[in-house]
Amino acid sequence: MKIAVIQFAPAFGNLNATIEKLKVLFLQAKGADLIVLPELANSGYNFESKLQAMEFSETAEESIYLEFLQKQCKEYNFVIASGFLEREAVDLYNSAIIIDTNGIIGKYRKLHLFMKEKLIFKAGNLGLPIFELNGVKIGMLVCFDWMFPEVWRKMALKGVDLILHPSNLVLPYAQTVIPSYALLNRIFIATANRIGLEKELKFTGQSVIVNTRGEILSRASQSESILIADINPLEARNKKITPLNDAFEDRRTDIYE
Amino acid sequence: MKIAVIQFAPAFGNLNATIEKLKVLFLQAKGADLIVLPELANSGYNFESKLQAMEFSETAEESIYLEFLQKQCKEYNFVIASGFLEREAVDLYNSAIIIDTNGIIGKYRKLHLFMKEKLIFKAGNLGLPIFELNGVKIGMLVCFDWMFPEVWRKMALKGVDLILHPSNLVLPYAQTVIPSYALLNRIFIATANRIGLEKELKFTGQSVIVNTRGEILSRASQSESILIADINPLEARNKKITPLNDAFEDRRTDIYE
Repeated sequence: MKIAVIQFAPAFGNLNATIEKLKVLFLQAKGADLIVLPELANSGYNFESKLQAMEFSETAEESIYLEFLQKQCKEYNFVIASGFLEREAVDLYNSAIIIDTNGIIGKYRKLHLFMKEKLIFKAGNLGLPIFELNGVKIGMLVCFDWMFPEVWRKMALKGVDLILHPSNLVLPYAQTVIPSYALLNRIFIATANRIGLEKELKFTGQSVIVNTRGEILSRASQSESILIADINPLEARNKKITPLNDAFEDRRTDIYE
Repeated sequence: MKIAVIQFAPAFGNLNATIEKLKVLFLQAKGADLIVLPELANSGYNFESKLQAMEFSETAEESIYLEFLQKQCKEYNFVIASGFLEREAVDLYNSAIIIDTNGIIGKYRKLHLFMKEKLIFKAGNLGLPIFELNGVKIGMLVCFDWMFPEVWRKMALKGVDLILHPSNLVLPYAQTVIPSYALLNRIFIATANRIGLEKELKFTGQSVIVNTRGEILSRASQSESILIADINPLEARNKKITPLNDAFEDRRTDIYE
């Protein structure tokens, strides 16, 4: 499975401009199987108010952005995971979707909201779903979710092979911890962070793809870039550390569950 | 609180020689409040058999090694944490003890055994105790326990300020993950690894003291060394990340507990 993480700056509140940017980037990512885009890739991040966020939002059922992604899936034979500013009735969610030529395969809503996101979004209410893609088990987390070891562990214990992590990180901490999560849980992780400036917020880029040993397969700097890594997600099924040790079977659930 | 991590090579099966080494090192660590020594500091690690380990072991109640440590606590006004090859009846434990001038304050037995340790030791049966030292809450883990995020998290949620981590690491992975655990749980961690060679095993040193932001306060190379760090363990009580975010209060226990 060839993963491409696209690190770019969405055009704030300008979906058409974002789509034009993405067309160029998707063409460059041609040949990849799975594309991962940043958090809120359809809208930008630094809203003035909930009202403004509402204005920029779309529903999952009626979305110019998602239609565009679906078409690109057809064009390039991609599956795409993307952050998505989602409206449902009067509520907004900081969501991530996986989409292919036939439409949405999976949706996740950010569980842990950062700073003033709490004033704009409802916290995720879809749990930690795992989606199957040609036999590969895929989970999603969004940005600040990274701080909570429970979510990575829980999905790993449920059998996830690969976690996609659309982000809008303004600090550089997450990127240093992601390899640890991959190593401890023996899973693949692809963090797609954005770059650029929105008012006082500067996003830190440094997107990363890591393997089940916590080794960095590809890492971006702070410029627009496409990270490519060819992985065998099924390697995540092997939790053996030594002939006598297994990262999951050795857990002392009698002590900590 | 001034912590001193002593990274050295115990003399395999030669307690007297180990004690002579430690006398020199303790003199150099004078002025520290809390000393942290590696795993199995009283015996060495790479036993030929359970029988040999039995031969090198002592009980916690009758131990030349622990008597020596207690005397050094009196001499220098230390509290000492050390790995300890512990015998109890016919069983062996890979333990860690905390001792002061009055004797043992706390004991922990390694929960997760690595490789052929499984043939020698019984797995820990004392849970994850937390000990109080002048108002500071201290926990202990031993070496391979590091692979299991649950133990760090569980102790952090129980209010631990500082985790001491006597180790005999033969791989370099743990040292890269320790800063992540400190950052995620907002606790201090002191990993005291050993150095030296025992038959086919080469120990990786690189002991480390990290603060609650995952910043490395002091890190050793692979030679004998004493790491010193002056910390305020009570900083670990503050779990705030931003004015609107708290590493513990933001946990979505509805989803993952």
